Amino acid sequence: MSGTRDFSAGAAWIEGEFVPIAEARVPVTDWGFLRSDATYDVAHVWQGRFFRLDDHVARFLRGVEKLRMSLPVGEAGLRAILHRCVALAGLKDAYVEMICTRGQPPPGSRDPRLCRNAFFAFAVPFVWICDPEAQKTGLSLRVSDVVRIPPSSVDPTVKNYHWHDLTRGIFDACDHGDASAVLTDGHGNVTEGPGFNVFSVRGGALATPDAGVLEGITRRSAIELAREAGRRVEERPVSADELRRADEVFATSTAGGIMPVTRIDGAPVGAGVPGPVTMALHARYWAAHADPRWSEPVRTGT
Amino acid sequence: MSGTRDFSAGAAWIEGEFVPIAEARVPVTDWGFLRSDATYDVAHVWQGRFFRLDDHVARFLRGVEKLRMSLPVGEAGLRAILHRCVALAGLKDAYVEMICTRGQPPPGSRDPRLCRNAFFAFAVPFVWICDPEAQKTGLSLRVSDVVRIPPSSVDPTVKNYHWHDLTRGIFDACDHGDASAVLTDGHGNVTEGPGFNVFSVRGGALATPDAGVLEGITRRSAIELAREAGRRVEERPVSADELRRADEVFATSTAGGIMPVTRIDGAPVGAGVPGPVTMALHARYWAAHADPRWSEPVRTGT
Repeated sequence: MSGTRDFSAGAAWIEGEFVPIAEARVPVTDWGFLRSDATYDVAHVWQGRFFRLDDHVARFLRGVEKLRMSLPVGEAGLRAILHRCVALAGLKDAYVEMICTRGQPPPGSRDPRLCRNAFFAFAVPFVWICDPEAQKTGLSLRVSDVVRIPPSSVDPTVKNYHWHDLTRGIFDACDHGDASAVLTDGHGNVTEGPGFNVFSVRGGALATPDAGVLEGITRRSAIELAREAGRRVEERPVSADELRRADEVFATSTAGGIMPVTRIDGAPVGAGVPGPVTMALHARYWAAHADPRWSEPVRTGT
Repeated sequence: MSGTRDFSAGAAWIEGEFVPIAEARVPVTDWGFLRSDATYDVAHVWQGRFFRLDDHVARFLRGVEKLRMSLPVGEAGLRAILHRCVALAGLKDAYVEMICTRGQPPPGSRDPRLCRNAFFAFAVPFVWICDPEAQKTGLSLRVSDVVRIPPSSVDPTVKNYHWHDLTRGIFDACDHGDASAVLTDGHGNVTEGPGFNVFSVRGGALATPDAGVLEGITRRSAIELAREAGRRVEERPVSADELRRADEVFATSTAGGIMPVTRIDGAPVGAGVPGPVTMALHARYWAAHADPRWSEPVRTGT
């Protein structure tokens, strides 16, 4: 029963029950923990509306299928749980994570085909990689020497928790006083950062890496909104040098939207302030959150 | 209090308390889960004695340091907890896992330096990748097309849960009716399998991959015991072809020891039965478990 509990810090769905986020736990023996054998997705709620939930759910279900798992709650159950987590927490702006894990095998077995897959979800207050105040100056990024785990090892289109490389990048950035890092592919091209995609803007045209990256929903929003505004957008290799020499650079993430990057490796990008193409896209992005084409109200009934 | 609980299926140490394994849970918001930002080690107990516990503890502590984490229980605390987990579970033969995670950041922060690192441990009945009965015929392995996550992305000497590539290998193997898989480095050389290292034997000399692999404690035991027996052992690149053409192949893991591999990609290795070099090492390995040089009794007092 969830009636008398305090969900104000966040609500989670764990093995059939809604619990306050502080009590939300997963079995230590779940292969989602012991083998990071899991896929996940993060949607967000803004001013009481889910943004592009259909796209997040579709990507999540594709990931579950690619990992040869089966979502124990089904798609309708998934949607109901996500809505209910947000409603229980009473959040107007929320970060909503859905997780499918391999689960646990029968005793003595090591066969992943025999595991009972598990589903977890939670809603917490909206998370910013870079909050609105910090976005006024823009993010400082470091191009890390760490190579992003390549697609020949792990399919980046299946959103996953293999973050050791990204975490090394974060430490690199912290050590240099930068906010975050972008990793390369080992051949001079940038890939992605911890939880975000990157775009360069040059002569009004946009470019974003086409390989070795998560196909972010915010990345897609940026591409679609820029094209609707008549801009050219290319998905292709983007070298670290191109990023450094760009007029503007921005990062895209569910955790923050479209965020200007104004310094790379300690040097200013373009004029060193958020640029006009970025800020126009930023405005279009947040305006789209009220558009029924891309958003739906959180179901607050029980 | 742990006095009246049933620990017979295994005992865990979770955030300051010993609990039965079925109740052992980690916070869903721990970055050890949400970013697989963790390192771990697995020691084993055989006939009431820990095997090479010092080596496992030393490797684990090196991993913790390399990830810039701090073990909240200290080394003496770690050892006491591992012994107590085994004693509580009453296990003579046990699989004993120790885990350090990044933990959780302060609310609103994404800075890994500010996280409160966490420690978890558990002891369960000994786990076999290939049990003694199956070892009589030997393992069938598949050389998978999946490339092991490279050291340029993730340091393989820090034992980690980034297993999506290994899991893909396991599915490859299952689909072909094989027991397990070994992954390559993308350049024709083998690396490691899910939880084990591999050795080839040719003309009485041993070879095992020197790069892109976990420096397994059982791997080290095999190297040391073979050298003590006067055999040549090389740590160097080992091609998939060399493995296929070997006289003998074996796998090494804490979860099973020294295990003969008798089929690769559906074809027999050598004579297709466990070979004499492998079986002599196998005997030496299990005999070493009673040797005080490498083992110590589980502390059963409270």
